[in-house]
Amino acid sequence: MAISNIRYGEGVTKEIGMDLQNLGARRVCLMTDKNLSQLPPVKAVLNSLAKCGINFQMYDSVRVEPTDQSFLDAITFAQKGEFDAYVAVGGGSVIDTCKAANLYASSPTSAFLDYVNSPIGKGKPVSVPLKPLIAVPTTAGTGSETTGVAIFDFKELKVKTGIASRAIKPTLGIIDPLHTLSMPERIVANSGFDVLCHALESYTALPYNMRSPCPSNPISRPAYQGSNPISDVWALHALRIVAKYLKRAIRNPEDREARANMHLASAFAGIGFGNAGVHLCHGMSYPISGLVKTYKPKDYNVDHSLVPHGLSVVLTSPAVFAFTAQINPERHLEAAEILGADIRTARIKDAGFILADTLRKFLFDLNVDDGLAAIGYSKADIPALVKGTLPQERVTKLSPRPQTEEDLSALFEASMKLY
Amino acid sequence: MAISNIRYGEGVTKEIGMDLQNLGARRVCLMTDKNLSQLPPVKAVLNSLAKCGINFQMYDSVRVEPTDQSFLDAITFAQKGEFDAYVAVGGGSVIDTCKAANLYASSPTSAFLDYVNSPIGKGKPVSVPLKPLIAVPTTAGTGSETTGVAIFDFKELKVKTGIASRAIKPTLGIIDPLHTLSMPERIVANSGFDVLCHALESYTALPYNMRSPCPSNPISRPAYQGSNPISDVWALHALRIVAKYLKRAIRNPEDREARANMHLASAFAGIGFGNAGVHLCHGMSYPISGLVKTYKPKDYNVDHSLVPHGLSVVLTSPAVFAFTAQINPERHLEAAEILGADIRTARIKDAGFILADTLRKFLFDLNVDDGLAAIGYSKADIPALVKGTLPQERVTKLSPRPQTEEDLSALFEASMKLY
Ligand SMILES: NC(=O)c1ccc[n+]([C@@H]2O[C@H](COP(=O)([O-])OP(=O)(O)OC[C@H]3O[C@@H](n4cnc5c(N)ncnc54)[C@H](O)[C@@H]3O)[C@@H](O)[C@H]2O)c1
Ligand SMILES: NC(=O)c1ccc[n+]([C@@H]2O[C@H](COP(=O)([O-])OP(=O)(O)OC[C@H]3O[C@@H](n4cnc5c(N)ncnc54)[C@H](O)[C@@H]3O)[C@@H](O)[C@H]2O)c1
Ligand SMILES: [Fe+2]
Ligand SMILES: [Fe+2]
Repeated sequence: MAISNIRYGEGVTKEIGMDLQNLGARRVCLMTDKNLSQLPPVKAVLNSLAKCGINFQMYDSVRVEPTDQSFLDAITFAQKGEFDAYVAVGGGSVIDTCKAANLYASSPTSAFLDYVNSPIGKGKPVSVPLKPLIAVPTTAGTGSETTGVAIFDFKELKVKTGIASRAIKPTLGIIDPLHTLSMPERIVANSGFDVLCHALESYTALPYNMRSPCPSNPISRPAYQGSNPISDVWALHALRIVAKYLKRAIRNPEDREARANMHLASAFAGIGFGNAGVHLCHGMSYPISGLVKTYKPKDYNVDHSLVPHGLSVVLTSPAVFAFTAQINPERHLEAAEILGADIRTARIKDAGFILADTLRKFLFDLNVDDGLAAIGYSKADIPALVKGTLPQERVTKLSPRPQTEEDLSALFEASMKLY
Repeated sequence: MAISNIRYGEGVTKEIGMDLQNLGARRVCLMTDKNLSQLPPVKAVLNSLAKCGINFQMYDSVRVEPTDQSFLDAITFAQKGEFDAYVAVGGGSVIDTCKAANLYASSPTSAFLDYVNSPIGKGKPVSVPLKPLIAVPTTAGTGSETTGVAIFDFKELKVKTGIASRAIKPTLGIIDPLHTLSMPERIVANSGFDVLCHALESYTALPYNMRSPCPSNPISRPAYQGSNPISDVWALHALRIVAKYLKRAIRNPEDREARANMHLASAFAGIGFGNAGVHLCHGMSYPISGLVKTYKPKDYNVDHSLVPHGLSVVLTSPAVFAFTAQINPERHLEAAEILGADIRTARIKDAGFILADTLRKFLFDLNVDDGLAAIGYSKADIPALVKGTLPQERVTKLSPRPQTEEDLSALFEASMKLY
């Protein structure tokens, strides 16, 4: 298991200029999105770069929930710039875009599909050296500062997919909780649901010693290895923080303790799922995001319709864990207890229902849209949603319980309405 | 914070030949000690090397509790061999020796003191590239497979010191719990006490945001940064495992679950203290080991007298935590509770006594020698023990409570007899 370097503390962003000097960087690419380019996190980075006299170019056209097109645009910028270091300031959309820009600028003869996960792309291993990338997360969140994953929406296929390689893991993640203070309520909520699902899915993923086939050479092991005693530590710890702080972080923008703890939980859950993997909530979320019709979430300052990633994963979570619980009910019950369920008289065979109920209550308390129907889907969309899930076997095969197409249909159907 | 790669699982040692092939290694240096060279862990590595046709030379003259002389002997072997990869199979003594051999063979023009911690050595930063080093720990233990530290006994000064640099951190740690099964009782106990103290000391170390002076450039930060929210996760988790499994691991060599869990706890605690640091038990342990007279521990198959590292740290632990508790009594009480104390009616101002009592009881149950007197020290040795502690400021300054020479004297005196 591999974990990137992270630096944590209020105000540590001010050191980023020195970090770049220490790396010997002479042409830095600073990536962010249009909304963030006007906000304190980017200002803090710009201040530090100015103070250290760092030569940089800024790219602020990252698309929120990136697509193949928006990745390519950033890649073109990176290729032209001949940069020797990258800085990504933003949520998963920015960090993922920057990872892709660094990768393809470092590998100019590769076709875009070369590194995209199979079966959609070729899933080639990365053997070129990349430039250093410093990630400054501003959501809490994807944990993308700790993972070797970059996700995008493949427009043609209307499905999300990604690139997964240890090579694109950031060199350093700067976790400065001050950056979370500017997040509006729904962005805290949705990115927090992502943390919740990273923790729950990696804790319940197929155990590492039950994956098959077992690769004959350790170098062929996937990044996502299944749940294991090390990722379990991170997943459980992140889950405990979510249980204690997510509601507070959402409800009170001034609650620094809660927002700082969620910022750390995001990295912790990232380290956990970055090694163990995620499974059905994430696998099913990709078509939920990819097939979006007209949904425009509150608090997102963007001009296109989108289902925020965290919302797209959490809406199926009650159905998913009710389905998977029969494999490792103890862990499902333990998760429910951490999230506040009273399990003193619970029967182990009810673990799935109990966790599902706990999640539904959690979401209801936080005014989450009432299921897939509330974000524009109906029964008629289920075949397309299932079809979009099938190519996500990189993650769905980490589900502790194998699933047929009928199972997937039933899970989408059960997620249409939550309350 | 930085964490090395680790691989965990029963039998994963068999992959080491492939790892070396994947690294492109053509001349491998295999280091171990005389005792281990006859035992299953080394046999498992040799089998895998043979299967993959790896060209290697074996050095089995590592000294248990290494000295400057024994380091130099291994360094000479490494320099002559012109190796392109290293494998260390053993406890901290072997892994640390191998780190030093790799470092100085990669930096042939350096004098030995160049990289040794100041004020004893020059503490120069390492800027040469090292060869890959795969560490296969056989104790549970130092966690040396996860740290950038190599400790030795500086004979001339009769004091232990070391080399600390991220550069010497192993490339990969292979944690194969099968290797713990051959450990005799006292080696399990003493190396387990090391885990206990790594966890307790890093959890109670000076917090990362209270160290001073604060280096102006992040590159000048020491490897030991003080307790922080990330090392806390590792320390607490390791402490919980120690509380649950150490006694079982000591008492029953067949208890695979207990021994496997302690093997993981050793790495967890290593990651914790490798980033946060240790403080007084370790700082005071170096002269306790360095000034050894005639003590020969049971179960150690060696021909010289020695105080095993884990024993040298744990004997002062009751006195140390009674002394430090006034700074962060909540954490001391929490540690006591994890180790089995009933704290329902405890008063916070008694935290230090409660933790000290809990530790004493823990050690008594495990037939640990009754204090420094039982391993050959008397009151007359205290000035020398204090003198040997003073140059250990790299760690002692991480104590949450500053200490005078009188304080150190009192701590040694209070550790003469435990029960
Ligand atoms: N790489 C990974 O490991 C990984 C894991 C999970 C998800 N993802 C991907 O990450 C993306 C989602 O990332 P996200 O949830 O972090 O959100 P995001 O990057 O999509 O940002 C969402 C919105 O929040 C705004 N925002 C971000 N930080 C802010 C702040 N501090 N103050 C005010 N506004 C702020 C952005 O400008 C944007 O409008 C998705 O594409 C998802 O698939 C990646
Ligand atoms: N580098 C670090 O981070 C770090 C941390 C703490 C301690 N240390 C150092 O590590 C050294 C102590 O290491 P240790 O406690 O791991 O013990 P060790 O390496 O000194 O070994 C102790 C004895 O146990 C035997 N042994 C080891 N594994 C065995 C097995 N599986 N079966 C049978 N016998 C076995 C050895 O042959 C030896 O005789 C000290 O020098 C200490 O200062 C280093
Ligand atoms: Fe996610
Ligand atoms: Fe130690």
